[in-house]
Amino acid sequence: METQETLAAARQIFGERLTFNASIRETHAHGEANPACHLPDAVIFPETTEEVSRLLALCHANHTPVTPFGAGTSLEGHVAPVRGGISLDLSRMNKVLALNAEDLDARVEAGVTRRQLELDLREHGLFFSVDPGADATIGGMCATRASGTTTVRYGTIRDNVLGLRAVMADGTVVDTGGRVRKSSTGYDLTRLLIGSEGTLAIITEIQLKLHGIPEAIGAAVCGFASEHDAVATVIEIIQTGIPVARAEFADAAQMAASIAYSKLTHLAAQPSLMFEFHGSAESVAEQAARAEEIACAHGGAGFAFATEAEARNRLWRARHDAFWAARAAYPGMGAFSTDTIVPISRLAEALALTRELVTRSGLHATIVGHVGDGNFHVLILYPEGEAARAWELDRGIVGLALSLGGSASGEHGVGLGKREFLPLEHGPAALEVMRAIKRALDPRGILNPGKIFLE
Amino acid sequence: METQETLAAARQIFGERLTFNASIRETHAHGEANPACHLPDAVIFPETTEEVSRLLALCHANHTPVTPFGAGTSLEGHVAPVRGGISLDLSRMNKVLALNAEDLDARVEAGVTRRQLELDLREHGLFFSVDPGADATIGGMCATRASGTTTVRYGTIRDNVLGLRAVMADGTVVDTGGRVRKSSTGYDLTRLLIGSEGTLAIITEIQLKLHGIPEAIGAAVCGFASEHDAVATVIEIIQTGIPVARAEFADAAQMAASIAYSKLTHLAAQPSLMFEFHGSAESVAEQAARAEEIACAHGGAGFAFATEAEARNRLWRARHDAFWAARAAYPGMGAFSTDTIVPISRLAEALALTRELVTRSGLHATIVGHVGDGNFHVLILYPEGEAARAWELDRGIVGLALSLGGSASGEHGVGLGKREFLPLEHGPAALEVMRAIKRALDPRGILNPGKIFLE
Repeated sequence: METQETLAAARQIFGERLTFNASIRETHAHGEANPACHLPDAVIFPETTEEVSRLLALCHANHTPVTPFGAGTSLEGHVAPVRGGISLDLSRMNKVLALNAEDLDARVEAGVTRRQLELDLREHGLFFSVDPGADATIGGMCATRASGTTTVRYGTIRDNVLGLRAVMADGTVVDTGGRVRKSSTGYDLTRLLIGSEGTLAIITEIQLKLHGIPEAIGAAVCGFASEHDAVATVIEIIQTGIPVARAEFADAAQMAASIAYSKLTHLAAQPSLMFEFHGSAESVAEQAARAEEIACAHGGAGFAFATEAEARNRLWRARHDAFWAARAAYPGMGAFSTDTIVPISRLAEALALTRELVTRSGLHATIVGHVGDGNFHVLILYPEGEAARAWELDRGIVGLALSLGGSASGEHGVGLGKREFLPLEHGPAALEVMRAIKRALDPRGILNPGKIFLE
Repeated sequence: METQETLAAARQIFGERLTFNASIRETHAHGEANPACHLPDAVIFPETTEEVSRLLALCHANHTPVTPFGAGTSLEGHVAPVRGGISLDLSRMNKVLALNAEDLDARVEAGVTRRQLELDLREHGLFFSVDPGADATIGGMCATRASGTTTVRYGTIRDNVLGLRAVMADGTVVDTGGRVRKSSTGYDLTRLLIGSEGTLAIITEIQLKLHGIPEAIGAAVCGFASEHDAVATVIEIIQTGIPVARAEFADAAQMAASIAYSKLTHLAAQPSLMFEFHGSAESVAEQAARAEEIACAHGGAGFAFATEAEARNRLWRARHDAFWAARAAYPGMGAFSTDTIVPISRLAEALALTRELVTRSGLHATIVGHVGDGNFHVLILYPEGEAARAWELDRGIVGLALSLGGSASGEHGVGLGKREFLPLEHGPAALEVMRAIKRALDPRGILNPGKIFLE
């Protein structure tokens, strides 16, 4: 059998770093919140790009499927090896290779995690701006085109990567982009690989754009009588050009859950916005004052502005813990988070219609959102054993977002879970262009088969 | 002959909008600063995406080359129909199709020009941030991955396009991306087409990101004893996080030329920086004060800050007229502008070594730069009939930039002029991936043949 040939030859390269261990295979069979659907035949832990290259050349020769794995935090089943073969765990490629404060850039291996990088950069007064919440690997964040709370100001990972090193399906190593801030020479392979979910190449190194840690950071939270008022506030703040660094929304149900879970007892269980402002001390104070003025004009109450790190950290920790807070509020229930995005002018409508769908489903749900981008997550709670009802609600919410000119995913990606929506969102012609690229770059279909495209 | 078949059938679709007129063919034989190298067999002026689609289906069937043409302002010969065939002039597709102030976006046809859009948006209090200087079409700016003076704050056109409508080689119409601010579903075809120079598809409509016109705008200019001091000032300003909207450099020779040409008699002929600041009135004043402090610490003298529109406009008009000022300073000489980019930490070195190359060449040159990005242009002046010496100097400058970790072009693109550098910059493996994509999407090679890749 061909996979056996690959594994026999790979054993010569990787030794003990190729494993058939059952529990390791099980942890590599699924991402977060996804059931295991297929075990890999083996898990391999490469340590260099060259090793990845040698392995892919073998897999290409033998038609062996390869599914890359980082921290396993992806939410749409990207890392599930649905055709078996090899789970390629890049977590040992975890070195920060270079850091250049003058150019505000760094080069990292794909397995470096977000928090590891944050700690490394902090002592240099620098930060990497993309924060999806989970402690994902930078390689995984590239593969899924991650973004998060700071996107409204700093962009997604697409905007914060200068170049990649990647291994193509046949083992060829390519460098896409370099260290320059921009270039107009040749096709943008960097952006083509970002978001390709391991189906076109395996990313092994990333050149990242960094930012200086702002001189001052302020945070604020504000409650509203209605979601419409909260959304109108954010729209006006962005139109006015206030360079808000974070603009997060939580609905009343999520606020109730977070107040209980994260002990935010000074807050009210009503639709709320959480802001962060970056800049000089004067600029941060001015941004907050202007945001407060706009919030008040939309009936916002209790605009609480804080510059102390402790109060800020507590607020953002609560935001990152939203999922766990919602689970705690509905004990014994299963939960998963779906992700859609609409043009911000349709956001209030999307939230209202989403709530109608939730009510009709008979399930519970809370809503949080990177509202400055029009991106929101519905945390769906369902009685154990009734996941199918939650998936049905999920499909309704995504369909609704698409009908409002939105996308099936703002930041979680396609993986297995969102494949059915691609023809509707992109149309058959664009999807065929994507398939043509896939066929051209991975003619044997060995790279993360079964993802993005329905067969 | 197959082109004749295409033209006969196209005549049925386009009538008088297909022309063999000799002078029209001549104006479509070259871009700015490029000699005509080949006339198109005919020039066609489509008015709808559907017409472009019908034409490309014909061209695909008959293997007829098609070279898109916008305003003809590109600098590397992109629009030259080196294999003859059809020059597809999109200038009549010049409608602004939609404008949405809440979402800060607009939809335009490919032939809309930058200044036309600027005027349309101004009355709505909005602006489109990408400013390459020339009054290029938005479609052409997408095709060449344009950027310019405001990139340091607002990004290149890559960062300011949400989605495209494009016609593939066989006439299929695709929509890439939509109206949402971000998405993580499927391959990033938008970014693949941006910068592909008409070799993968013909872009016909663009969904653009807009910005609100800032409440206040300030400009400043400052002279330095050395280029090194000017560059160090910019590096520190960016590291400090001052959100400067423009940071332009001109060397002493360019300043002398611009002072004479644009009557900037209050300025000195020394290496200079020109800044623009956007924000609230308080924020602009604070940004300027902080920038001045940093400039002074590096010996900057005469930091002149102005908020009056007249003084600002005069400064930026002078910047945009730099090329003409340099030509006027060296009457009777031929001139062309080359374009490279290096990591900003290598910029002072790149400028010094570039000057050595200029001196050794015996030619004159002035240097201007989007210095916040590490991007600079050398305006090379050469005696009539000695263009070859200028091209040789150009090749030396580009090779130097590549040796410093740079790119052969920051914003002008590859076209004909920079093809030879792609293997060196990207390496044979990445170039082969680009070629594989080209073959997959344009198997008959009809779209802008002869560009980007050397045969």
